[in-house]
Parts: sequence; structure tokens; C-alpha cells
Amino acid sequence: MLFRIESDSVGEKQVPKNAYYGVQTLRAYENFNITGRKIHPELIKALAEIKKAAAITNMEVELLNRKKGDAIVKACDEIIGGKLHEEFITDPIQGGAGTSMNMNINEVVANRATEILGGELGDYSVVHPNDHVNYGQSTNDVIPSGGKIATIRLIDKALIQLQNLVDALLEKSVEFDHVIKMGRTQMQDAIPIRLGQEFHAYANAIKRDIVRIKRAGQDLKHINMGATAIGTGLNADEMYVKHIVPNIAKVTGIDLIQNDDLVDGTQNLDGFAAVSSALKVCAISLSKMSNDLRLLSSGPRTGFGEINLPSKQNGSSIMPGKVNPVIPEVMSQVAFNIIGNDLTITMAAEAGQLELNAFEPVLFYNLFESIETLAHGVETFIENCVKGITANEEHCREMVENSVGIITAIVPHIGYKDSARLAKTAINSGESVKELILKEGLLKEAELTTILNAYGMTEPGISGKELLKK
Amino acid sequence: MLFRIESDSVGEKQVPKNAYYGVQTLRAYENFNITGRKIHPELIKALAEIKKAAAITNMEVELLNRKKGDAIVKACDEIIGGKLHEEFITDPIQGGAGTSMNMNINEVVANRATEILGGELGDYSVVHPNDHVNYGQSTNDVIPSGGKIATIRLIDKALIQLQNLVDALLEKSVEFDHVIKMGRTQMQDAIPIRLGQEFHAYANAIKRDIVRIKRAGQDLKHINMGATAIGTGLNADEMYVKHIVPNIAKVTGIDLIQNDDLVDGTQNLDGFAAVSSALKVCAISLSKMSNDLRLLSSGPRTGFGEINLPSKQNGSSIMPGKVNPVIPEVMSQVAFNIIGNDLTITMAAEAGQLELNAFEPVLFYNLFESIETLAHGVETFIENCVKGITANEEHCREMVENSVGIITAIVPHIGYKDSARLAKTAINSGESVKELILKEGLLKEAELTTILNAYGMTEPGISGKELLKK
Amino acid sequence: MLFRIESDSVGEKQVPKNAYYGVQTLRAYENFNITGRKIHPELIKALAEIKKAAAITNMEVELLNRKKGDAIVKACDEIIGGKLHEEFITDPIQGGAGTSMNMNINEVVANRATEILGGELGDYSVVHPNDHVNYGQSTNDVIPSGGKIATIRLIDKALIQLQNLVDALLEKSVEFDHVIKMGRTQMQDAIPIRLGQEFHAYANAIKRDIVRIKRAGQDLKHINMGATAIGTGLNADEMYVKHIVPNIAKVTGIDLIQNDDLVDGTQNLDGFAAVSSALKVCAISLSKMSNDLRLLSSGPRTGFGEINLPSKQNGSSIMPGKVNPVIPEVMSQVAFNIIGNDLTITMAAEAGQLELNAFEPVLFYNLFESIETLAHGVETFIENCVKGITANEEHCREMVENSVGIITAIVPHIGYKDSARLAKTAINSGESVKELILKEGLLKEAELTTILNAYGMTEPGISGKELLKK
Amino acid sequence: MLFRIESDSVGEKQVPKNAYYGVQTLRAYENFNITGRKIHPELIKALAEIKKAAAITNMEVELLNRKKGDAIVKACDEIIGGKLHEEFITDPIQGGAGTSMNMNINEVVANRATEILGGELGDYSVVHPNDHVNYGQSTNDVIPSGGKIATIRLIDKALIQLQNLVDALLEKSVEFDHVIKMGRTQMQDAIPIRLGQEFHAYANAIKRDIVRIKRAGQDLKHINMGATAIGTGLNADEMYVKHIVPNIAKVTGIDLIQNDDLVDGTQNLDGFAAVSSALKVCAISLSKMSNDLRLLSSGPRTGFGEINLPSKQNGSSIMPGKVNPVIPEVMSQVAFNIIGNDLTITMAAEAGQLELNAFEPVLFYNLFESIETLAHGVETFIENCVKGITANEEHCREMVENSVGIITAIVPHIGYKDSARLAKTAINSGESVKELILKEGLLKEAELTTILNAYGMTEPGISGKELLKK
Repeated sequence: MLFRIESDSVGEKQVPKNAYYGVQTLRAYENFNITGRKIHPELIKALAEIKKAAAITNMEVELLNRKKGDAIVKACDEIIGGKLHEEFITDPIQGGAGTSMNMNINEVVANRATEILGGELGDYSVVHPNDHVNYGQSTNDVIPSGGKIATIRLIDKALIQLQNLVDALLEKSVEFDHVIKMGRTQMQDAIPIRLGQEFHAYANAIKRDIVRIKRAGQDLKHINMGATAIGTGLNADEMYVKHIVPNIAKVTGIDLIQNDDLVDGTQNLDGFAAVSSALKVCAISLSKMSNDLRLLSSGPRTGFGEINLPSKQNGSSIMPGKVNPVIPEVMSQVAFNIIGNDLTITMAAEAGQLELNAFEPVLFYNLFESIETLAHGVETFIENCVKGITANEEHCREMVENSVGIITAIVPHIGYKDSARLAKTAINSGESVKELILKEGLLKEAELTTILNAYGMTEPGISGKELLKK
Repeated sequence: MLFRIESDSVGEKQVPKNAYYGVQTLRAYENFNITGRKIHPELIKALAEIKKAAAITNMEVELLNRKKGDAIVKACDEIIGGKLHEEFITDPIQGGAGTSMNMNINEVVANRATEILGGELGDYSVVHPNDHVNYGQSTNDVIPSGGKIATIRLIDKALIQLQNLVDALLEKSVEFDHVIKMGRTQMQDAIPIRLGQEFHAYANAIKRDIVRIKRAGQDLKHINMGATAIGTGLNADEMYVKHIVPNIAKVTGIDLIQNDDLVDGTQNLDGFAAVSSALKVCAISLSKMSNDLRLLSSGPRTGFGEINLPSKQNGSSIMPGKVNPVIPEVMSQVAFNIIGNDLTITMAAEAGQLELNAFEPVLFYNLFESIETLAHGVETFIENCVKGITANEEHCREMVENSVGIITAIVPHIGYKDSARLAKTAINSGESVKELILKEGLLKEAELTTILNAYGMTEPGISGKELLKK
Repeated sequence: MLFRIESDSVGEKQVPKNAYYGVQTLRAYENFNITGRKIHPELIKALAEIKKAAAITNMEVELLNRKKGDAIVKACDEIIGGKLHEEFITDPIQGGAGTSMNMNINEVVANRATEILGGELGDYSVVHPNDHVNYGQSTNDVIPSGGKIATIRLIDKALIQLQNLVDALLEKSVEFDHVIKMGRTQMQDAIPIRLGQEFHAYANAIKRDIVRIKRAGQDLKHINMGATAIGTGLNADEMYVKHIVPNIAKVTGIDLIQNDDLVDGTQNLDGFAAVSSALKVCAISLSKMSNDLRLLSSGPRTGFGEINLPSKQNGSSIMPGKVNPVIPEVMSQVAFNIIGNDLTITMAAEAGQLELNAFEPVLFYNLFESIETLAHGVETFIENCVKGITANEEHCREMVENSVGIITAIVPHIGYKDSARLAKTAINSGESVKELILKEGLLKEAELTTILNAYGMTEPGISGKELLKK
Repeated sequence: MLFRIESDSVGEKQVPKNAYYGVQTLRAYENFNITGRKIHPELIKALAEIKKAAAITNMEVELLNRKKGDAIVKACDEIIGGKLHEEFITDPIQGGAGTSMNMNINEVVANRATEILGGELGDYSVVHPNDHVNYGQSTNDVIPSGGKIATIRLIDKALIQLQNLVDALLEKSVEFDHVIKMGRTQMQDAIPIRLGQEFHAYANAIKRDIVRIKRAGQDLKHINMGATAIGTGLNADEMYVKHIVPNIAKVTGIDLIQNDDLVDGTQNLDGFAAVSSALKVCAISLSKMSNDLRLLSSGPRTGFGEINLPSKQNGSSIMPGKVNPVIPEVMSQVAFNIIGNDLTITMAAEAGQLELNAFEPVLFYNLFESIETLAHGVETFIENCVKGITANEEHCREMVENSVGIITAIVPHIGYKDSARLAKTAINSGESVKELILKEGLLKEAELTTILNAYGMTEPGISGKELLKK
């Protein structure tokens, strides 16, 4: 391989001749071989948008000449368009609050802009990574701001999937509205419910999650560009500070706002932690629902057998005909992973010291994974599971009729104590509750039929007045 | 001890003759000897309020006669007023989604009401725990609703402390506005900042926490009373279902609303998890701030020594004169505990199955502790730490003047590369940055004085235009 | 109340006249009102043992005169015997690495010893908390050592319960060895298993937990007494340093060893974190088992219904006859709490800085709760659940015979593909696997009977040779 | 692209003509698009080793003919050698307890073996994925066993790095043995210590971690091969069950042992959780040490400035000359990530139900990442940080001499109370402790010089006898 020589405060170093990144990126690459993975493309894009907006702003306030500025903008546009991403070689988990990522984009933009202006890669006299591309900025405002932009975009994609999930669940709640089945509390037979009511409840839980995630995402729109190193705006021109955020808003199409308090905005990552928390609560709902679906579809013969999940693949390498709830299983796994990621994010946010939090990289690494796997997991959950669920209506009905739990509806008529006695007898003898009541002459058959109307039991009604009026 | 005999489905059992609780409470007491602690008084109060509102509602809809109803109301009022709390003997960590707590209050109220009506303790023919006190209710709507009421009240107390903290920090930010000191990023000298700016940032972070906790608390105002066992409202009269929540709102003075979807409201605990998450994010901010205060007050001679925390107790049993940052330390410990509690709450919320989450008790146990220790921790943090902080103004100023970091302000004038070289020289030789620049004739003394004005460096300004206009 | 005046570095302060604690304890009490709880009695006892051993050692090396020393020993013996515990008033969550606890015991012992010697409470000229009781010690060796002793003792109690659980499970595994039932993987019918095998597996998992917890407990036997403030042993006499740990071993009856590296022993809490981790892994096993028991006992009519848990209390305030798996539920709640506590412990251990970890108090608070609730939870789990489990043998057998999963045993004879086809047909038509095979003439009835012998299917056997020899 | 048609229980499907994977892998690929990542190569290798050993065993017990068997072995050897890894296309987070991974390797091996025998890809009549490659096995024994083998190998690599770290730290402890500096507790000046003692303590903590990780790794050597679907060994020949684990041991070179209780071995993942816990405790030690290094190297002028970390890259894009502790920062980030991963692993292990844990994939995904990033993080920590640390010996010494904390050494001579008074005076007046004592005539200069010998203060000594003998 051919090399060029670059130097920085540490000393000289060979850089691959055709690399758009430079010496500082290369040092970071060597220092941080942690995950072997790449910076998330949404973050690369967001950083390029910031660099573009900064160049525009610097030109506006006459701190950057047009020629250099236009070349920087052009280089940024290429990256925004998806080019040069392979030049981003720093590990997502890196020391230094993202200085390496920031220098990576500074160097790539500087070199590409230099090239555009007819210069040679590595000749930073044309366009300099720090003096021109990074002008008026610091890692400490660029990286948290870039992270927020990327997060906001990823959240939007995830919210689409969550809304699709709500829609799919609501459709199922209509489809299953007439399916009467036994409700269960604490895994024990309770009283009748409609399968549609269960799916309606699932939909409502996810609706709340959408509200919470949206809200947390909204809060991220406050960015600290203009803060430079520690929020005091040192080296940033007053006019630049005023214009940079509106310009980023224009470039990104997101209604970003500058933090009121840039010192606060630079050192605290609570906004990210709040997003992660909202994802975590959503993970709770998704995992609970997935677990329910696995329970309800347990069987085919020795389980609950109330619903059927679509058969998406052979369930077993050894047991023929076995169909497993693989999609809910993967949904729960995604949920567990999000919950674990939330802990890492919590620890990273807590570890900030004084004017900066140096642990953003691992926070982003986990947060981006959480949002993306949520979106992917929910997508397969909708398409390969929820939409194809069918109900075993007949079996559900039989279980209601055969249950002891329906005695609850009798309580207002004969009291808790007698009801409890009958329930015990029924369980031990195997007799039906209805038979027992008739045998003991506690209620007349017509009354009983009214009271034990299964659909009626699934809604509040006029009941029980007799007992207490006595 | 004298006993009376009570019986339930399990069989007969001796109950202490003068106990207001009954057989079911006693069984729970024996089954669950886990923490040795008591049900939180705010929860007892909330449950009594619900029982009172239920009795009122049942009387209104003529499902409970006045005599019994009035006695129930009177008994509840006594408990609300703080009486009979010693009769609540079930362990806060208990199996059964809180059935034991619910039966505990049902039995205490029934017995006290019976007594009020001239009956004997244990004679449930007068007022029955299930048939009268619990009428129209279920553990599964009473307990989550009670938990929400208690949580809302505890949050209110915590928010007062958090607001006090914001006020105290803002006062300090004014007091310290003129104290110039070195900012630090990644524990390395960065550039100047004012101590007041640091306290302002702390205040702002807590302000966001207040918003998030309030918001999460608001969401808890949706309660599922009327749901009975699984949200279908079985055995609850339509009119009761309509009136119960407004009546609880009246009794508690909280603007509670009934869940739109009572099935959802009965099985999902995401609202509590969201509150806990908001507390967790607040814990992050508090611990970060505490850690900062410990750093800034490190010394007295070999640390940063920028601020002094009030001396609240001897720091050491062996080292005389040692004053330790014990209040920030306890604040961080409270934070760690809240973060751990949040995990338990997450797991409890995730473990819900089908129509119910049976793990509410451990969730409440942790959530109540989180909110209360937050309030207590913040209170001591304000009174015994924040308010008494003083600044070592002189030392702070000297460190700024002596620092290399101020070279950053020179970059727009002489470029990054030369600045880096000078910085390196300064660090190695011990010379001051100012001397070096003058020695090399890079800037004139007057220019330098303007640029290195310490206060000026703590705000964005007009700077650096020269360099890039060249 | 009557008061006496005491003073310390902070100033003068009124102390209740009859209190055995002194001014420093009182300040701590006022500074730390966090949980409202008390120092764990096992920790108080351990601290008293250390103080006793220190006095003995100091007398041996002639650094403490006999009269004072004997009085200290006597005072300590009283505390070890359970007296004066109400004098320990500092909150378990406290700043200062336990200095407050250490001063609390120093003051109580000094005052009691003073009293024994005929002096007045508060007259530290007789026996001084620091100069005599704490002589040769520091909070920083006393508190971690005391915490280790308390933890070791609590672990021992928990291990007894875990061993009892293993025994109870093994008994059940024998009792249920002949009960053939369907095994389930991923909640779907799999192939036959014996109920006894399931209980055997539960026992084995707990056996591993016992090994892990024991091992982690063993490692705690290395204590840092003699370290004084930071492990360098400053102010501790060489002979004292040599004798203190053997003397504590004698007093406590535990084979304690002095840390090789006292600096390390003073600053690192990894040993506690390792114990907590072992508890956490045990919590995983316990919760998984509890969840299984709730699944297997689900019903009575619409669930798996394979086993019955003993009925320990009414299951519901509204649904008569309902018996809920309250004991497994509380076991899982204990498990969730332990897992959350482990996180707090992790964060506390991670937060240590330089020569000391100042976050021990919250670590102890959580660790002691984890161990104790584990012991209590397991005890009720054994007595009120495991021992009383019964099997629905007949129902289990029917489900096996009716299952499709047994087709797995046919695969070696007719291949995976044909088996899968038959399974699908069986599930759709409701026919039995056996009928289908006979109908298609794939195997002879005698062969089939041999292959489908249910007990045989629960052990590896001679099978399938035919197919592949072809 | 050209396709071939394959079919399974779900139906027919186009598979790329040249793919070695088959229809079941492809369905899994489509069902699980979660992380976009690949199965870990160590897991692929381990699975190939298991398949090879199974083929060998099946040939030995005459359940697989030589021709097919040899072809399978050959195909496996190629995969073990690193070939065909690109054919493993299932997402590491997948539903189904790893059935998709198992079918992926079954299909790749079957197709490659078919090809070796002159057959066409997709013609499973030659070598069948289930009937031949998977013969005697199940996902449920193959996947956990494969995961254990991969984990053991990864642990070995991590342990090498941890041992290197111990060695590097011990070297530093020798190099810095003479550097006297102030120890700090709770961030406050305490008493003198030698820098070498600090590094010695770091080394010792890591030594314990090595022991714990090794121990946890040892426990993983018990594998459940022979269990087939649920541990009962159904369809596995007795002789196969006896020989399979020794054969895997031979193939892998690891002394693997068969689980005593295969039912237990199939359903419980506590062994993995225990490994993760050991890594988590190690992460605590590493993060604490990293944090210390950042504290000790804080400055250069306004921090502790006791040590210098090697300068590995420019610290800032805006602040020239800034060198940041990027390597300790990345080490802490790795630690936070491991701690978060441990939570996911905990939840996955806890979620197992009945005969199987279906959440292994997400557990492996996190566990492998934890071990590898630990190894990578520690490697850069050693090479780019620890080895290059230098001490500012002079500055350290000055701080000791200037400190108030050395008064602790005086306590045994003049008592705690007087010492505390002097310390207070010194802090307020700025005078040195030595001066004050001489001024007050409390000790003679010669005595004082002996007592305040800095090196002497870092080891236990003969001291203080005077005071108490009085």
C-alpha cells in the first residue's frame, strides 16, 4: 500500500495515500479496536449535516471564505448522500467523548474539499480539518448534537412500526371481539373475557408507549451547537452562535432549538437516558404481550390452545410438526436487549464529570441498537405473527362453559361464602357450577341462564342488587 | 393471648381476640415473612379512601344499606386519619397481586364497622369484608388504584424538594457568578468557566427532571376502579362503575380519571415503570452533580480545592481534621439505590401475565422507597450541603491564570497547529502561555490581554475574525 | 428531655442525657434521614466483635491498659449479646463509608465502658471513643471487615434454606418419578418426560447455586483489619497488625484471614459484588422454577393442570374458590428484588475512588436484604409450596397419550419428512398419531407399542438403528 | 440470481442455486432481521465440531454409514478451518432457542457433504440435514453445548489479556514503589501512600477477577450433548449418548464432561449467567481503576497531576495541546457495556420455561460481545495506557509535605482531640502541621522527624506506645 505522511501533536505517521481520513482518525482506529463495528450511518449523516450548516454559518458571518466553504458544503453533501461512509473507520466505542468521530469527519471533509479544490489529500493548507471544517465547533457540541439528530430520525422509523403494531392489534381486537374465552389472573382461571378485549388492551399499552417515546424524542430537539468546548461558546462568534442552530434545522429539516443553557446542554446526557427509558418501558409492554401470545398459543394439545400463531418455520430439528412461537420469542429477546442497553446508557450518563460526559460513544452505540432492533423486531412481530393470528373459538367457548370461575357472577346473588363452598365442591367433584346451584336450589334455571350469559359477563351490568337490598 | 375462631375456604384458624384484622390477613402474615417491614402508610391511607368512596358509591346506587355504609365510611375515616395502622400486618412483599393487603383492609374496616354498629370483632354477619367492604371491587382494581394514589402523593412531596434544590442551586449560581475558574473536560484542564455557570447547569438539569417526573405522575391519574377482577367489570353495577372514580377523586382531592380501557388498566403497570424511569433519570443527574461537588471540593491541599462543602460531622475516626463530602456521598448512594430499584420495577412490570400483573407488591415496595429516599436525600443535600457551599475564589483565579488551556482562545488568531506546539512547550517547560506568545512575538501584549480576559472567555464573543479573513 | 453537652470538631451539641451514643452519632442521625431504618443487627454484632478483639489485641501488645480494656470487652459482650441495639441510630444509607456507624459503636462502647468503670456518660476521659475503643483501627478497616462477618453469617442461614430446598425437591423427584407427562419446549408440546425428572432438574440447579454462593462467601473471609485508614497500617502497631485478625477469628468463630494486600483490601468491594452476583444467579433459578410451578399448576380447568400447589389462602377477594400460586409469586418477587439490589451493589462497588469506596453503606443495605429475603422467601417456598405439591397423574398420562409430540420417537423409523407430514395431519384432523401410522401401514402395531412406551421415551434407549443401516 | 426449489413443513421456497444453506435457513433469515449481524465465528466453529463429533459417534455406533459420515466430517473440517462462514446468514438474535442456527449448520454441512459425494446442492437424499447431520441431536443440546465451547475459547483469550494486565500493573508497582504521594479517601487528603502500593492493589483486584472468571469458565465444561430435545435422550442411542461427549472433547481439545442430569443441563442457563457475572465484577474493577487513573492524571495544572498517561492522540478538536485519558475512558465504556449486557443475560436466563430456555440467542449475542470487548479493551488499556504511565515524583512528594493529613501519624502521641484542633488551625491558616506542633511544643523536632518519615508512614510500625502507657 502507498502512504502519505501526516503529523499531529503526537508525531508523524503514515496514512494510506488514498484515504480521505487522516492521521488523527488513524490513531483513533489503532487505539480503539473494541467492537470491530462501524459508526452508525445515521450518525455519519447527521455529523455531515452539522459540518455543512457550520460552513454555511461561518460563511454568512464571514469567518470562512466562500471557496473553502463551498467545497466543504459539497463534500458534506456527498457524505449526506451516502458516499465516503467507508472512510469512517473509528470504532463506535471509543474514548474521548467522540473526538475521534469528530476528527474523522473533519478529516474526511477537509480532504474531500481539498480534492474538490484541486489539492492533494493530506494537504491541509487548502482546507484544514480543525481551522476550517471544525471552525466554531468542538467535539463537545458537535457529537451530542449529531447524536440527537440521529436519534430523532431513528425514533421516527421506530414509531412508524409501533403505530403499525397498534393498527394490527386493533384490527385483531375487532376480528376477535366475539370470541368469548376464560380470563386468567395469576395463571389461574378467573372469569370470562373476549379475546378482542385482550388485543384491545395490548394496543392501548403500545399507544402509551408511542406517546412516551415521542415526548422523549421531542425533548432531544434542544441541541447545544454554539457551546464549543464547555458551553461558554469560547471561540465561537456571537453571530455564528445565533445562526448555527437555525441553519442546522434548515439542513436537516428538523425543528431543532438551541439549548437555553449551553453549559448544561454540553455536560448532561439525561435527554438520551430519558429516550432509552421510554424504549425500556415499551420493551416491557412488548415482552409481556409476547409472553401472553406464547401462553395463549401453547399446545397444540397440552396447552391453552386458544390462539394459533402463524407457522413461519419448522420448530424443531428433532421434533417433526412442531411449530414454535419464534416471533414472540425474538420480540422478547429484543426487549431484554433493550433493557440491558438501558442500563449501559444509565451508567454512561451517570458517569459524566464536570463540563463534559466522556461516555457518549457507548451510549450512542447502545441507544441506536435499541431503537433499530425495536423497529426491526416490531416489524417482524406484526408481519410474521400478529397479522396471522387465528382464534380457536370453539375451544375457547368450551373452556368458559366448563370453568368454575364463572361462579364469581353468582356471588352478588348468593354471597361470597356459599359461592366459595360451591366452587370447592365443583373443583373436587368435577361437576359444573350450574348443576350444583340448581341441585342445591339456590337459584332458578332462568335466573342462572341470565346471570351466566358469557358475553354479558364481559361487560359491567345491572347485577347483584337483590342481595344487598335484603 | 385470647383468641377468637374465624374460618375461610382453607379452614378454621385462631385470630387474636382483639385484632381488627381477620383470618385471611393472618394467613398472609404467616405465608409472607419476607422483609419484616410494613405496608407503606400512604398506601394504607389510599386503600381506606378507596373503600370509603366505594361504600359511598354503593350507597348511592342502593347496593349497600345506609347503616352498614355509614359505619364503613366512619371506619375508613379513622384509618385515613392515621388510626389502626398497626393492624396492617402483611409484608409489603407478598404473593397474590396484593390480595392480602386488600383483605387486610377489608377485614380491618369490616371489624371496625361491626364494632361501630355494636357487633363483635369477627362477626362478619354485621359487616362482611367481601360482601360489603369489598363490594363492587376486586384486589385487581383496588390495589393498582391505591398504589397510584399513594405514588402521586409521594411524588408531590419529592417534587417540593426537587424544586427547593433548583432554587438553592440558582441562588448559588448568582452568588458564584463572578468566580472565574478552569473548566475541565475528561478531567483535564480545558478553558475558563464561571462557577455560577456550573451551578446554573445543575439547576437546569433538575428542572428537566421535575418536568419528567411530573409528566409521569400525571399519567398515573388514570385508574382502573370499576374493572373488578380483570377489567370487564363483572359484578360491578353500571352506575357504580360510572360513579366510583369521581367519588374517589372527591375523597382524595386528586383529579383522577377512569381508564378508557379497563382491561388494559388492570393488567399493565407501565405507568409505574415510567415513573420509576423518570426517578432513575433524576438519580443520574443527582449523582453526577454529587460527584462533581466531591471533585471540586477535593483537597484541602492535594485536590481541586475550588469549593468548600459545609462541615457536617467529623470525617474520620482516625484522621483528625478530616472533613468528608458525606452529603454528596449519601446522595449518590440514594441514586444507586433508585437505579437498582428501577430494575426490580422493570422486571416486575415485565413479568405480568394475561389479565393481571401479580408482582405489584414488590413494585410498590421499591417505588415507594425510591420516591421517599429521593425526597429525603435531596432535603439533606440542600440543607446540609448546597446551601452552605463556599468558593475559594482566589485559588480558582490563580488556576485559570496558570493554566495552559487558555491557549484555546488564541487558536482563532494563530491557528490550531501553532497553538498546539505552544501548549506542548508550556506544559513541558512550566512557562505560561502568555509569556511564550510574547516571546515568540505572535501577538502583541494588548491584543493578548483582550483575548485572555478571563470573564470574556466564559461567553461567546467577537473573535477570530482576523485569521480566516486573511 | 434532659441533655448533656458534648463537642467535636464541628462544635458543641446537646445529647440526650441517658444516651449511650454521643455527639458524632447524633450529627450522623441528623444528616442522614434517608430510609428511616436501622443498622442490621448482624452488623452491629460484628462491629462489637471487632471492637472486642481490638481491645484484646491492644491489651496484648500493651497499648491499652487492662482496666479500660476489660471494660471495653465487657461493653462489647453486652452488645454481642443483643443489648443496647436501640442505641444504634444511624441510617443504614449514610455518607462517609460507614464512619457514622463506626463512631456510633465507638461511642456506645466508650460510654458503656465508662459507666462500667463508674464514670458518667459523656465523660470520655475515662474511655475515649477514638483513642481507646477505635485504637489501631479506622472506619476503613472496621466497616468492610464488619460487613464481611455479617455477610458470612447471613449467607450461612440462607444456605441452610437452600439445602432444605434441594432436599425437598429431591424428595418430590422420587415421589413423582413415575408420573409421565408431556415435556414442553418453547411452550409447545414436545415429548414425554417424568415429573420427577423435572423436580430433579430443579434440585440440581439449586445445588450449583449453593456451590457458587459458598465459594463467594469463602472469599469474603479475607479481611483488611490492620489496614487502618488506607491499607498502609499507619498508627497500627506491627504486633497489633499481626494479631488482630486471629483475635477476631477467635471472637467470631469464623476462620478469617488477613488480606495479603491491605491497600487492595481497603479500596475494593469486588468480594461483596461477587456474593451478590451469586445470589442473583440463584434468584434466576428460583424465579424460573417458580414460574414453571405456576405454569404447571395453571387451571384448574383451563390450564395445564398437571400439579396442584397447596392452598395457603383465599386467592381472591372477588372470585370465590380461587386458589392462587401466591408462594411462587412471592418467590419471584424476592428474585426480582435481589436482581435489582445486585445492580445497586454493582454501581456502589464501581464508584469506589482511589484508597476507599465510600459507598459501602448502600451496598450493605442491599446485600443484607438480598440474603435475608432469599432465606425467608425460600423458607416459605419450601414449607408452604414445594412440600405440599401433588400431581394430577391421570391427567398427565392422558395428555401424553393424546399428544402429537410422541411422533418424535417414530422419526428414526420413518424419517423426519414423513413424520412431519403425519404430525401436521394429526394436528389438523385431531386423529391420534398411532392411528395414523397404523392406517398408513408405516409400522406394525407391536413395533409401535414398543416405540411409544411412554416411560421408555423418557430415557435414552436402543432405537432407530433400522433406518440408517439401510 | 438462479434458484433451486426446496420445501419444508411450511411449503416450497426458492433458494439461491449455489447456496449451501437451505430452505429452513432462508426462512429464518427472513423472519429475523434484527441486528443485521452475523453468528459469531467461534460459535460456527464449535457447532461444526459438534456435528463432526456426532458423525464420528454415529459411525462408531453404526447408526450412520461410513460414506455419508466421512463426507459430513470433511464438510465440518472445512467449516472448522474457516471456510463457508458466509453461508451462516441467520441473525444472532433469533427466536427458537437457536433452531435456526442449528438448521443453518445442518443444511450447510448436508449440502457440502452432498457435494463432496458428487450430489447436487439441495438433494437431501444423499445427506439429509436432519436425518444424517443432526442425527441423535437436537437444537436443545447442540446450541447450549456449542455456546459453551465458544465461550470457553473466548474466555481463554480474555484471560490472557487479564494476566498481561496483572503483569503490567505489577511492573508498574515495582517501578513506582519509591514514589511517596498522598492517599485520598472520599476525595479528601488522607495520609501518605506509595504509588507502587496503588498499582499493586490494582493488580491484586484483577488477580481475583481472573480466578473468578476461570472458575465460572470451568463450570461450563459440563455439556448436555446426548440430551436431545429435553434431556431425556429420546431418539439417541445409549451408546451414542455415552460416546458423544468424549468425542467432542477429542475434536475440540477441551476436557468436556457430560452433565449428570441432562434435563437440568438442557433447561438451565445459569452457567452462562455466572460467567457473565464474573465478567461484570471484573468490569467493576477495571472501571474503578480507569477512573482512578483519570483522577491521578487530572491536570496538567489544575488537577492532581500525580501521573501522566501516554499521549495517544490529540485530545480535542478545539483545545490545542489537550491530552485526554481516552484509553481509561474507553475501558470504562467497555465496562458499562458489559454490565448492561449482564442484565440482558440475566433476563434471558430468568425467562426460561419448563424444559428449555428459548432465549439463548440473545444471551450468546451479549455474552460473546462482553468477553471480546473485555479482551480488546484490556489489550489497548495495557499497551496504550498502563505500560506508558509515568509518575510526577517531585510533585507527589511536595503534596505530602504540604499536607495536613500527616497529622494522623501524630495522634498516637498527642491524642485525637488536640490533633483535630491543630488540623483545623493548619487548614485555616495555611501553616504546616510540623510548624504548629513545634510552636506549641507538643513534640520535639527529632521525634517529629521520626514520626513524619513519609516512607515509614506507608507501612505499619512501632508507634504510639507512649500515649496509652501513661
